[in-house]
Amino acid sequence: MSETAAVRRGRGRRPAAEVRAGALEAAGRILLRDGMPAVTFERVATEAGCSKTTLYKWWPSPGALAAEAYFTHSRQLLEFPDTGDIRADLITQLEAFVRWLKESGAQAPVSQLVGAAQLDPDLAAAWSQSYAIPRRDLAVERLRIAQRQGQLREDADLHVIVDQLWGACYHRLLVLKVDFDASIAERLVDQALYGAAPREA
Amino acid sequence: MSETAAVRRGRGRRPAAEVRAGALEAAGRILLRDGMPAVTFERVATEAGCSKTTLYKWWPSPGALAAEAYFTHSRQLLEFPDTGDIRADLITQLEAFVRWLKESGAQAPVSQLVGAAQLDPDLAAAWSQSYAIPRRDLAVERLRIAQRQGQLREDADLHVIVDQLWGACYHRLLVLKVDFDASIAERLVDQALYGAAPREA
Repeated sequence: MSETAAVRRGRGRRPAAEVRAGALEAAGRILLRDGMPAVTFERVATEAGCSKTTLYKWWPSPGALAAEAYFTHSRQLLEFPDTGDIRADLITQLEAFVRWLKESGAQAPVSQLVGAAQLDPDLAAAWSQSYAIPRRDLAVERLRIAQRQGQLREDADLHVIVDQLWGACYHRLLVLKVDFDASIAERLVDQALYGAAPREA
Repeated sequence: MSETAAVRRGRGRRPAAEVRAGALEAAGRILLRDGMPAVTFERVATEAGCSKTTLYKWWPSPGALAAEAYFTHSRQLLEFPDTGDIRADLITQLEAFVRWLKESGAQAPVSQLVGAAQLDPDLAAAWSQSYAIPRRDLAVERLRIAQRQGQLREDADLHVIVDQLWGACYHRLLVLKVDFDASIAERLVDQALYGAAPREA
């Protein structure tokens, strides 16, 4: 048994940050494997090896825990690359996002999280503050670099670009309920960058 | 009492189409006034003056009835104008859509409908088939006219334009949970038409 494992066994010995990270990891795993209704404080406490009281201390509801877990879990998989070419990087990132939804099993939990958030103000706040807005900030950060480099117009609204790329995917996923795959990425990016009007107009 | 009203009083006398329209009208009224949970077969039957059995015959669930009622009710308010200028018409329509959400009280019922649809496959099918896809078709029809007139590029993806305009609003409403108003319409339309990349690139 390694020293770390031995320390882990000692109840109450683990630093709070480690326990918190473990709970988020367990919640993310349960969410992606079994969906939103499976994320209960009971299950997460059992899988993470901590007490339910500990979870209550940090999260007002299982929905809030699920939202933060989703952000933590998806963050590493959905990083924003910077190769210096904004068109290529947006396509890469959007393709990764769509594959994450469609091939890694995130589609159902994401839909359930956003769906439940429409009927639960606590979850809505957790989702928005722990996931949606931080993700938008990461995207805008990358877009701002491109704007400084002259790859986006000075008067381009970077929040609107986010709406027109990731928002378009959510539109198909949640509102239209039509199927789509990663091949949509290039079309979305090109139309967001170059527009739908004739270039000569 | 008018002749029509007299006929209405006679139970079972009304043509099915009239009863159906009355039920949809009542459901739409209840939905927009009191929200999704208030749309029960009981309430709609009482307000529409028909039997619950009749409602069961036409709709598998109150959610399916609410979705169709929403489309029927919003259709007249959200028509697609054709003045010959696609930019102006898109701005007019998007502004009407945002005002409908933000000022006419549709925001809560729409969010609740889409939210509940993520957890209820019957409602999801009703929402998609009775509202979301027909609305997209109406938008694409108007966009296709503009494309034929040379106001949109021949290779522009009209479905993507819908995602990038109305989808952007849904993104802010449902996913980001940030506030917005009708002033967003012009920015969305201009960025969808002219793109975010420098014009000279």
